[in-house]
Amino acid sequence: MPVTEEAKRLFLSHLDAFKKITGDAYVLTDEESLHHYAHDETENLLFLPDIVIKPRSVEEISEIMKICNQYRIPVTPRGAGTGLSGGALPHKGGVLISFERMNSILHIDERNLQVITEPGVITEVLQMAVREKGLFYPPDPSSRGSCFIGGNIAENSGGPKAVKYGVVKDYVLNLEVVLADGSIIWTGANVLKNSTGYNLTQLMVGSEGTLGLVTKIVLKLLPHPKHDLLMLVPFNDLEKAGAAVSAIFRAGFTPSALELVEIDALKIVSRFVDSTVVPVSDEMAAHLIIEVDGNHPETLMAEMEAIAALLADFDCGEIFFADDAQQKAELWKLRRRVAEAVKLNGYTIEEDTVVPRAELPALIHGVKALGLEYDFKVVCYGHAGDGNLHIRIKKEGSIYSLNNPAVIPALKALFALVKSLGGTISGEHGIGLIQKEYMDIVYTNAGLEVMRGIKRAFDPNNILNAGKIFDLEK
Amino acid sequence: MPVTEEAKRLFLSHLDAFKKITGDAYVLTDEESLHHYAHDETENLLFLPDIVIKPRSVEEISEIMKICNQYRIPVTPRGAGTGLSGGALPHKGGVLISFERMNSILHIDERNLQVITEPGVITEVLQMAVREKGLFYPPDPSSRGSCFIGGNIAENSGGPKAVKYGVVKDYVLNLEVVLADGSIIWTGANVLKNSTGYNLTQLMVGSEGTLGLVTKIVLKLLPHPKHDLLMLVPFNDLEKAGAAVSAIFRAGFTPSALELVEIDALKIVSRFVDSTVVPVSDEMAAHLIIEVDGNHPETLMAEMEAIAALLADFDCGEIFFADDAQQKAELWKLRRRVAEAVKLNGYTIEEDTVVPRAELPALIHGVKALGLEYDFKVVCYGHAGDGNLHIRIKKEGSIYSLNNPAVIPALKALFALVKSLGGTISGEHGIGLIQKEYMDIVYTNAGLEVMRGIKRAFDPNNILNAGKIFDLEK
Repeated sequence: MPVTEEAKRLFLSHLDAFKKITGDAYVLTDEESLHHYAHDETENLLFLPDIVIKPRSVEEISEIMKICNQYRIPVTPRGAGTGLSGGALPHKGGVLISFERMNSILHIDERNLQVITEPGVITEVLQMAVREKGLFYPPDPSSRGSCFIGGNIAENSGGPKAVKYGVVKDYVLNLEVVLADGSIIWTGANVLKNSTGYNLTQLMVGSEGTLGLVTKIVLKLLPHPKHDLLMLVPFNDLEKAGAAVSAIFRAGFTPSALELVEIDALKIVSRFVDSTVVPVSDEMAAHLIIEVDGNHPETLMAEMEAIAALLADFDCGEIFFADDAQQKAELWKLRRRVAEAVKLNGYTIEEDTVVPRAELPALIHGVKALGLEYDFKVVCYGHAGDGNLHIRIKKEGSIYSLNNPAVIPALKALFALVKSLGGTISGEHGIGLIQKEYMDIVYTNAGLEVMRGIKRAFDPNNILNAGKIFDLEK
Repeated sequence: MPVTEEAKRLFLSHLDAFKKITGDAYVLTDEESLHHYAHDETENLLFLPDIVIKPRSVEEISEIMKICNQYRIPVTPRGAGTGLSGGALPHKGGVLISFERMNSILHIDERNLQVITEPGVITEVLQMAVREKGLFYPPDPSSRGSCFIGGNIAENSGGPKAVKYGVVKDYVLNLEVVLADGSIIWTGANVLKNSTGYNLTQLMVGSEGTLGLVTKIVLKLLPHPKHDLLMLVPFNDLEKAGAAVSAIFRAGFTPSALELVEIDALKIVSRFVDSTVVPVSDEMAAHLIIEVDGNHPETLMAEMEAIAALLADFDCGEIFFADDAQQKAELWKLRRRVAEAVKLNGYTIEEDTVVPRAELPALIHGVKALGLEYDFKVVCYGHAGDGNLHIRIKKEGSIYSLNNPAVIPALKALFALVKSLGGTISGEHGIGLIQKEYMDIVYTNAGLEVMRGIKRAFDPNNILNAGKIFDLEK
């Protein structure tokens, strides 16, 4: 439903009130600004907000929300706009709140291994800041060089380290949140264990800005592991690579990263970043990137060798051990830039499937069969150790759109397959705008009604990122 | 508010309907049964249900809930009755649902390192069953030999291993839940990462049976570590013992258990279990129990020695290393039975405070000062590595009750202290009936209103464990 001219006029009638809160400079309505905030990294979607506001404090956000709630103005919170499910797209117009000015790391608490930060801090900046103190914040999405920690919380992001260290939700101890009516709450306490009422913290993580606006974040940190080792293992059979993944865990190993990259994706990204570190030949089908970390180099070496020995049972090729920091960095660069590279090669639609780890071969097999059936090309890569496989689709002559009849039946079949394997439709990207159509594949109506009930309790006027994850009216 | 005779008659008018669902044998109203289910391990509280039902399946529970919801009959779910906050007490009468017959481990999935279980399985039985397959379910409350896994989920239990491995919430992947109206949902999927809608799984964990009845549980498992080492370290100063705890983590170590037991508690429990394994003298103030675990014995030994060296800075006494499995078992038995022993010695009120780890010395100092101010004796013990300190109170001539004027002001002062240190009032026992009076110390009204809104969304008739955690009307 497009935003009507009358609605736009109503939204804009509050401009002066917003300017009074943040100062004139931080309330924008010029075309260029509106366009800048109209897209994220999700395919080719574009939705213009009517007003962009860049507040600096929780108090300003509280005041903005009071106005928006009173006058039913749609509010879309936005981090760095690197999302892959359209969570930050202002598809209802209204106010877009950008967190870019709330970018201070407030306190690195070395005594308690915690950090308190604002949401607009770039994830990698936060990681480096705590790293300087010998501390470790593991969740590291591919976009970590540009994404905001607040956006990571909205989508419950993961990344390669999740296989050993968990995802964002496992590090969030406490959140300051502005609710739809402008009231400000803390969801918990700055403690490692908490059985004091409902877990509002975990409810907020992954709720994609539909329940409240996160304004301060308390994260748990770990001591940084002192050493890591990295190896790259080629396989001539994609499903065998998948089977090797679960064998590693069943043998009692817990790598700190276990990534899979299909050969087509590796070829594309190698060209894209102009790298020759990985020799690629046509006999290969996929590579596993395996990292172990810890404090004792000799233990790590023994572990790596034991894993390598185990992989021989799965017809792997010659293993490449990264010798030094530079080789490690180059391998990780390849992995991190896969999505960008294959997208530019026409694989425009990315899915974020996740299944129980041992079902990975069945998922890969099924995906390839669906490609044949629905006539699309597909490349797979992702966090195989978690069972989290990113699937990129290329369909000749078909550009992605939200309701493209050439794509929807294929995606429905894909998600039905994922569901049948005990999995679900998003492991770390969120549902946002573009996956909500498929929520009823993995949830019954009773389950969706529970989510709608929660949304209504938090946001009775449905102003906060409305129409993301699910529609309130069915 | 006591249950009226009229209400009781109404509840009992549905007896035949309940019997039709489960069979006559599993619907009880005799005095002895009602008394059996009228208490848990929380002090001396006793509330009789009107009807006890022991269903065997999710379908039976769904049918029971439809009746209770239609006729507004209070429902109290109950595991093994080992709770410490009164969560399973049927203080509104009505129907008590006991999960004791839903006690099957349904599937140990060795391929995916998961287990699917019913809620009535004893936690230790589950741990042993997966242990036989080389797998590890870490959360281990002191009551693990009798408590149910379902109750652990209701209270988000912890235990000694939480310091390295996390609490119950960190292992729950997916839950089958019967809602207040009898509908049945799954909260998520059997996957390690999930960004598909609101985290209903985590919202359910720790919700103490107020949002739904958990009927199936999917838990993540780990490979079982092959080795562990245990040591016992005496300190002549309680606050220094507390300070040593945070120093261990700041030096980069992550023990698999880090427990503190104050000397008075250790003396009492040593007599109670007739053990002489720990020499206790009047110069000692407290002991730390420190465990490390992993797969490489030589690494563990090096770690233990490094920790021991570090502790010398905190004036510790002679360290006792447990030599063999028997000594380890004896030390753990002492730790596990502390609560029972000190309770029998008149320390009837147990609090479950948790603070950021480095604030432990300040908490201990403050607790002792409060004891002098309010004239009660106090012993401390608990999961110091998590900042989770159990505080047992003995007040001469005063028996615990929910609104004992001799106790409430002291507890309010204690929780205000905890709050001022960045902590909260329950780390692993839950709020239940006996702590709800203090919720407004750690949450603002806006935060409590959010919880009430969630409760109303799940249970509009307020029949599910009503009046636990908070009252709906304020």
